Amino acid sequence: MIRAMAAPADTTDTRFSLPQSALPTAWFNVAPHLSSPLDPPLHPATREPVGPDDLAPLFAQELIGQEMATDPWIDIPGEVLDVLRLWRPTPLVRARRLETALGTPARIYFKDESVSPAGSHKPNSAVPQAFYNKREGITRLSTETGAGQWGTALSFACAQYDLECAVYMVRKSFEQKPYRKVIMETWGGTVVPSPIDDPSHPGSLGAAISDAVRDAVGRDDTHYALGSVLNHVLLHQTVIGLEAQQQLASAGETRPDVVIAPCGGGSNLGGVALPFLPDPSVRLLAAEPASCPTLTQGRYEYDFGDTAGFTPLMNMYTLGHDFVPPGIHAGGLRYHGDSPIISKLVHEGRMEAVAHRQRAVFEANVLFARVEGKVPAPEAGHGIASVIQEANDATAKGEERVILFNYCGHGLLDLAAYEEYLAGDLVDEP
Amino acid sequence: MIRAMAAPADTTDTRFSLPQSALPTAWFNVAPHLSSPLDPPLHPATREPVGPDDLAPLFAQELIGQEMATDPWIDIPGEVLDVLRLWRPTPLVRARRLETALGTPARIYFKDESVSPAGSHKPNSAVPQAFYNKREGITRLSTETGAGQWGTALSFACAQYDLECAVYMVRKSFEQKPYRKVIMETWGGTVVPSPIDDPSHPGSLGAAISDAVRDAVGRDDTHYALGSVLNHVLLHQTVIGLEAQQQLASAGETRPDVVIAPCGGGSNLGGVALPFLPDPSVRLLAAEPASCPTLTQGRYEYDFGDTAGFTPLMNMYTLGHDFVPPGIHAGGLRYHGDSPIISKLVHEGRMEAVAHRQRAVFEANVLFARVEGKVPAPEAGHGIASVIQEANDATAKGEERVILFNYCGHGLLDLAAYEEYLAGDLVDEP
Repeated sequence: MIRAMAAPADTTDTRFSLPQSALPTAWFNVAPHLSSPLDPPLHPATREPVGPDDLAPLFAQELIGQEMATDPWIDIPGEVLDVLRLWRPTPLVRARRLETALGTPARIYFKDESVSPAGSHKPNSAVPQAFYNKREGITRLSTETGAGQWGTALSFACAQYDLECAVYMVRKSFEQKPYRKVIMETWGGTVVPSPIDDPSHPGSLGAAISDAVRDAVGRDDTHYALGSVLNHVLLHQTVIGLEAQQQLASAGETRPDVVIAPCGGGSNLGGVALPFLPDPSVRLLAAEPASCPTLTQGRYEYDFGDTAGFTPLMNMYTLGHDFVPPGIHAGGLRYHGDSPIISKLVHEGRMEAVAHRQRAVFEANVLFARVEGKVPAPEAGHGIASVIQEANDATAKGEERVILFNYCGHGLLDLAAYEEYLAGDLVDEP
Repeated sequence: MIRAMAAPADTTDTRFSLPQSALPTAWFNVAPHLSSPLDPPLHPATREPVGPDDLAPLFAQELIGQEMATDPWIDIPGEVLDVLRLWRPTPLVRARRLETALGTPARIYFKDESVSPAGSHKPNSAVPQAFYNKREGITRLSTETGAGQWGTALSFACAQYDLECAVYMVRKSFEQKPYRKVIMETWGGTVVPSPIDDPSHPGSLGAAISDAVRDAVGRDDTHYALGSVLNHVLLHQTVIGLEAQQQLASAGETRPDVVIAPCGGGSNLGGVALPFLPDPSVRLLAAEPASCPTLTQGRYEYDFGDTAGFTPLMNMYTLGHDFVPPGIHAGGLRYHGDSPIISKLVHEGRMEAVAHRQRAVFEANVLFARVEGKVPAPEAGHGIASVIQEANDATAKGEERVILFNYCGHGLLDLAAYEEYLAGDLVDEP
């Protein structure tokens, strides 16, 4: 803890910065803190547990090691820290104006991950993934992207280590968000709509994963990169929660009462929440879309990570690997499955989950934009909708609840969704 | 100076944050530091110097007072600081990866004004302008916008004080940047293309000012707000340079050798540069577009601020108030005139000016995006192009030159311009 170096909190402070020297130098591995080891992923053909060799065509050895690691902390390489320093540590912000607008005694804080180059939390994992692959001789990465946040992040990360980057983008998002393609190309990435073999299909994350995996297994120079779900991705994201712990302390808070984040595959929720897991007094809450209610309505069972069944089976909450969610604007949350870590925590009751409908999400987003000045990504609005529910509950009970949420990305490349909402044309899911 | 509170510089530090307690509480007024008082603005009809009463239909009394003030410092109201704290102080960043890419011994720093709600430096003045008008009983503001940055900032600021906001947007930009309208509407603003009486005209800042002034003089509840040029706007922007002075000190720098910013009307250049004016060893440099070369090719004489001749005449560099610049992407720099303060400094040789062509600007922007991770606004690229020239000159001369520039805004709502550039379709000015 570097509390002594943080500025002392002032009663009017709303933003809690950390000096760069307080940037975490190791990731927090949740594995030793789980009630029991995770169930192993199973080979898609044999249904036997997969070993490192099975994953080698897709991932760097170092990442496979992290996927299965049980060490409590894993060092962040200096070459990764050098790139993370372009935007980290990110600010912790007290949303005082939102508190005032809600008339709540709750104290609301958010980690502002929107300040990254890609505008979301995603580069936290894209950078180490690109780095480890580069170090192991790989020259090209393939990946999928939903809303475009992950593809943007990986394009940025590949530019830092001089890697090629091929992005398969869910067709519905590709069409809704033309600027996403441009920003990926600005960093040297290439972008194609998915599924590549059916131009009439709106696409899904599962199908785009199939396209990206097929690309990677077909080329020796190429590995695959996943932006969520897997243990090593959540591991990389824990810098968010680790920084937040230091910053809450400098804001004078002992702990948050509840930690909230949107949940699609689980990476931003895991990033902010997992470092708080060892403290049983901290509630953890996942906010997901009502149109893709994996945690609130899915089954907890082994399923494929992709549509075509190329990936190992994982024990997780799932809506079925052939589920095609409605084309809501929160493209990053349109995933049939969920992180095995998050799924286990929800299954065991350690983590709560709630679902929000699209219009309520945009109502929360516009309120947030007007009072806090930040225009949220549609994904982020799911978290904000939950924050508002928690704050209102605290108000009803007269509690000084401390709420921490992850502001996982800005909506500046999602403004078409706002246009639809402001025009009254945004429909709720059936 | 709050140096003691800043974190000590580390050799690997790239970002220098300030605690919120170091936010400047007074603006730096350059008037006492000029070689002689500014020439007075002249009434458009009588050509006599205008007094406060002449400006009262357009501006709040407090702003008129600031326009003519000679006090060295002007206090920032607490209600304004409360809103500025949503994003200020902004980071000072050392662009180490750009230095490496250029192979230069120069040390390059930038103020990151892109982290504001509106994504540019513009809210620094929009917020106090909205506040003073609200306090004086005004319920609605009208304004013009070029690229959209100022209109976005004023819409945000009006939302903070519950004011209506009417934005007249240069038609060419209105058509190039549809998301700009959406973000202004998200904050409750209304946006119409200008000139309102000629749908076939691409528009200009001068014509949009005419539309906005005409709106304001026709309604008792409405004042006009200008986002650049005027003394009080540059005054509000000096928080940028004042913060930079503290941050450079915490980075171990005695002073910058040169301070650089893009210059359209002069607000972001004035903001970063004017606090350094009293030190004659600091060079000040304006970067403007070759297609609208006000400072490098204009005449220094009295001219109207707008096309229709509604505004007072000001002594400034001008290309003529009926000049219609080509529709380059840096819409914020397409102005026929310039700030009287900036003009006087250039005229007297205290400030330098250089012009850049559009393709060179985007080349600089793409390099910056790839190495520093930030996608600049087209306007910002003019400053970056000058930074690269200065760094290369330092390299040639073997000098450890300290370069400070204002990264005045991000380009996330300008990606159509990048698409054109990356496709090879971006043409240089004739």
